[in-house]
Amino acid sequence: MEMNYILNSMWVLIAAVLVFLMHAGFAMVEVGFTQSKNAVNIIMKNFVTVSIGVIGFFIVGYGIMYGKSLGGIFGVDGFILINSPTEYAGISFEVFFFFQAIFAATCATIVSGAMAERTKFSSYIIFCIVSTTLIYPLIGHWIWGGGFLSKLGFVDFAGGTAVHAVGGFAAFVGAKLVGARDGKYKKGRVNAIPGHNIPLGALGVLILWFGWFGFNPGSTLDITSPLTAHAAITTLLGGVSATISSLVFSTIRYKKPDAGLTLNGALAGLVSVTAGASIISYLGAIAIATVAGIIMILSVEFIDTKLKIDDPVGAISVHGICGTLGTIAVGIFSTQGGLLYGGGVKLLGIQILGVTICAIAVLSLSNITFMIIKNTIGLRVELHEEIDGLDTIEHGISAYMDI
Amino acid sequence: MEMNYILNSMWVLIAAVLVFLMHAGFAMVEVGFTQSKNAVNIIMKNFVTVSIGVIGFFIVGYGIMYGKSLGGIFGVDGFILINSPTEYAGISFEVFFFFQAIFAATCATIVSGAMAERTKFSSYIIFCIVSTTLIYPLIGHWIWGGGFLSKLGFVDFAGGTAVHAVGGFAAFVGAKLVGARDGKYKKGRVNAIPGHNIPLGALGVLILWFGWFGFNPGSTLDITSPLTAHAAITTLLGGVSATISSLVFSTIRYKKPDAGLTLNGALAGLVSVTAGASIISYLGAIAIATVAGIIMILSVEFIDTKLKIDDPVGAISVHGICGTLGTIAVGIFSTQGGLLYGGGVKLLGIQILGVTICAIAVLSLSNITFMIIKNTIGLRVELHEEIDGLDTIEHGISAYMDI
Amino acid sequence: MEMNYILNSMWVLIAAVLVFLMHAGFAMVEVGFTQSKNAVNIIMKNFVTVSIGVIGFFIVGYGIMYGKSLGGIFGVDGFILINSPTEYAGISFEVFFFFQAIFAATCATIVSGAMAERTKFSSYIIFCIVSTTLIYPLIGHWIWGGGFLSKLGFVDFAGGTAVHAVGGFAAFVGAKLVGARDGKYKKGRVNAIPGHNIPLGALGVLILWFGWFGFNPGSTLDITSPLTAHAAITTLLGGVSATISSLVFSTIRYKKPDAGLTLNGALAGLVSVTAGASIISYLGAIAIATVAGIIMILSVEFIDTKLKIDDPVGAISVHGICGTLGTIAVGIFSTQGGLLYGGGVKLLGIQILGVTICAIAVLSLSNITFMIIKNTIGLRVELHEEIDGLDTIEHGISAYMDI
Repeated sequence: MEMNYILNSMWVLIAAVLVFLMHAGFAMVEVGFTQSKNAVNIIMKNFVTVSIGVIGFFIVGYGIMYGKSLGGIFGVDGFILINSPTEYAGISFEVFFFFQAIFAATCATIVSGAMAERTKFSSYIIFCIVSTTLIYPLIGHWIWGGGFLSKLGFVDFAGGTAVHAVGGFAAFVGAKLVGARDGKYKKGRVNAIPGHNIPLGALGVLILWFGWFGFNPGSTLDITSPLTAHAAITTLLGGVSATISSLVFSTIRYKKPDAGLTLNGALAGLVSVTAGASIISYLGAIAIATVAGIIMILSVEFIDTKLKIDDPVGAISVHGICGTLGTIAVGIFSTQGGLLYGGGVKLLGIQILGVTICAIAVLSLSNITFMIIKNTIGLRVELHEEIDGLDTIEHGISAYMDI
Repeated sequence: MEMNYILNSMWVLIAAVLVFLMHAGFAMVEVGFTQSKNAVNIIMKNFVTVSIGVIGFFIVGYGIMYGKSLGGIFGVDGFILINSPTEYAGISFEVFFFFQAIFAATCATIVSGAMAERTKFSSYIIFCIVSTTLIYPLIGHWIWGGGFLSKLGFVDFAGGTAVHAVGGFAAFVGAKLVGARDGKYKKGRVNAIPGHNIPLGALGVLILWFGWFGFNPGSTLDITSPLTAHAAITTLLGGVSATISSLVFSTIRYKKPDAGLTLNGALAGLVSVTAGASIISYLGAIAIATVAGIIMILSVEFIDTKLKIDDPVGAISVHGICGTLGTIAVGIFSTQGGLLYGGGVKLLGIQILGVTICAIAVLSLSNITFMIIKNTIGLRVELHEEIDGLDTIEHGISAYMDI
Repeated sequence: MEMNYILNSMWVLIAAVLVFLMHAGFAMVEVGFTQSKNAVNIIMKNFVTVSIGVIGFFIVGYGIMYGKSLGGIFGVDGFILINSPTEYAGISFEVFFFFQAIFAATCATIVSGAMAERTKFSSYIIFCIVSTTLIYPLIGHWIWGGGFLSKLGFVDFAGGTAVHAVGGFAAFVGAKLVGARDGKYKKGRVNAIPGHNIPLGALGVLILWFGWFGFNPGSTLDITSPLTAHAAITTLLGGVSATISSLVFSTIRYKKPDAGLTLNGALAGLVSVTAGASIISYLGAIAIATVAGIIMILSVEFIDTKLKIDDPVGAISVHGICGTLGTIAVGIFSTQGGLLYGGGVKLLGIQILGVTICAIAVLSLSNITFMIIKNTIGLRVELHEEIDGLDTIEHGISAYMDI
């Protein structure tokens, strides 16, 4: 075997393992930022998401995403890894699939956060199946699987759109259709429902950040390329810059350094540099993430108080808005054709067009899916279940005993 | 130096580091699934296990396991790494030892979970010393160190028997001899004693899963082999398949999607594919783990309600039963000589024989060890200590203050 | 590109990612070992430290530490990575910077633990900026950046002095100047203020240990060298030996196996082998760490009861004292010129001189910095804020709700 094949396969295998731990990160963030009475339900949703994500992607999703393209719209072979090659993109095919399967599960997880604390377990499972076998692989095909967006020149290095914006858009539809938690909007007032364990949420953010060093630098699929280390640094700078900007901005706006917004700020920064991590400069990463840390706060406020859509963990703003922001910013900050680097407005136009198409597709497909669920088995638990907590009713236990 | 030597040494070094984090996983699972009044004690046992495991393996265990074989029964040199070579199995000897030392500590940890909440700290430490310096290395020698089972053709890729079943069998003896926790079996009824922190337990499961990607794929000791990536995928599929089967089966059987059983289901799946991760097909991994997720639940129920052996975290079922199941399944699903792949019943016979011999040996040796401890310093704390909690009595503090 | 360049760059990139997770470890240790009413504040300090550490090091720190040396005292170019080379020390320059930037943030974090529960958020941030842009890079330049200590032959392999002792010395000054927590020393009595979540603290220790396998073995910057695996084993042996010695010593001295001291024992052992991990023998690592586990306990007791300096997490003893101890021990146990290996007292003398110079410099510089802060905006929160907890007053929320 060729040496680069071995080196790059090894690198992507390790990167995939790092990405896997992000599921622990998502679980802890979602548990920490919500109420203790629903913690078991959130844990269960995360385990189900990983499981369905991987199995669904193995059976159907991979084929749709990376199979032989039918008109640039979706793939039509490679299901259950039948007749799979030994190599893909210069690395071991098995490693490539392993990396992709773990990615696939990430997208659906974003939705569970936005719909937490009032969504039926069974309804969530159905959406999760549709998301990981259809919605995510479809968009993924367009962007990464040789589909029409990639042919157009749309750039999404590690999934700013394909994973984060897609997850965030679906989260928006889900959170809107399931409705707000009881007591969230009462008599015209917006009531904060604080998370029950900030240290656990913070642990989750740091674990996610750790996994992001597999997510972004791993996406080069090439450890011999200088872009890999470059992506590691932009990821680091992205996380820290948005942490600082959201800390400063929340302090100015709300007179206190807000913990929830600062922690989400770190994630917003990481999301915002994901689309262009390998091709934006260091100062570009700092600029994009600094803006993302602020935009995320404004978005959380707007969605919460103006749209009155209840997103317990801020997933729509962190993943949807900052994923979109970062994707468009590639058109400005990319050192390979961005507006600031002499590329004119062409790439910027493509980026805006691409993310818009994905937004329309995801909003439509998730709307259809959620509406079908809503009008059949229903999306939402009964009010008394919500008040008592999903853990007791849906799972028959409490997350915490005798502390 | 040869390139493969460097590449494979690097890979196994990183895999060993991933395996190390499994100790955090075990600690969180055991703490989360037990009562808060014993959390400090459990933490202390985990730290002691890692420490004694590594030091014991360094001084004695490694020599017994990998030293020059005396009749295929045990090794007789290599103690304290004296006269150690620079290479072993094609990789750096030091890396090989590092990987093995971290493995060794894993086995003993399994026992601590099954005996949690009523075992004397000092008694556990004594068993831990015996386990990591004698029992584990002895069986390890038979299977991996050139001993008689390896000569027989017994296949245990990453420790389905050598680590998990051995740990599970010893856990069975320990839990039986120490007796059930106070209040567990009262007036003929079986009372559940729920864990005190499910989110922490879930975090532990995900951390274990993360570490398993070092445990299984790392066990090829060869990143240039396609078996490594194959083992990564079967590990992933094993974990998710058993999560789903245990979720579905627990929902059918107990009318609720049970969190404890689903989390243990993930572990059961991971254990069940460990013996054959590199040589079973993808569909084989899914089949084995799906069965394991169900068998684990039936085993937990049987041990709890029929045998009336109190295993707070389900370690006997998860590691002992599913480790055994997975080892035997290699005889059926191995693409290199399994029943379904034209190999006839020969390998299946060897697998059954091998795991039976190991079971008898471990059950006998741990029985002798625990009986000696029981009849000298005693295995169990006083009833009032158990009721008050081991933390206050044995360690003088509480795990939690002022929450 | 040359193969060693790629291999070593890949190794250090992965090692840096492991080190990054240490920030989650520090956060959990500090949260677990302190009171719940200050948990949000501690989390916020950790996020701020990482962020300021990375940005400050990017803009100023790297240049001072690794820029062209002005008389061996500090570097004068390389700010904002301008005109950076493509290679440094045989690896990718970007990887080298990534590794160093994550290291830089570690040093400041040590201080936050010792000053926890009564320090003003804004004052801490100011110190953090000075520490990561000036104090740490300055000492780093002397030791690693081609400065006068490295020319003298001073050995500090992975930062026993440069990171841990420096952090510990600054922690000493900070804890002394900010004063003890309310109620800590009352009517001549020393009152223990127990941590509120030991399992979380234990998780933090294990995560730190995991990250240490990037910190120490990664510091060779060379995966092709046998020293890398050697450093992994001495790190493992260091952690376990001190766990055992602190467990045994605390049991003898205080009649109970003390959890806090045993967990800190593991860290003390890891710190103590950091200065010499690649060049001390296995038995040397065991010896140094065994002593460190005991010295740490005596140091905690001395600082607490004799000096009456209130260090909530024991950071001064763990990092300052054991970092110093390990640095000096290199002069005795180094297989390359140590006293026990025929090197005479020369290296021992250099080690003592070097760590003394660093101690004086750090004590002076942090004293000046903290005194300026104390005499301007003040170091300490108001008494009523401290009693109510920093979370409510400084951040407007509680770490825990409705458990």
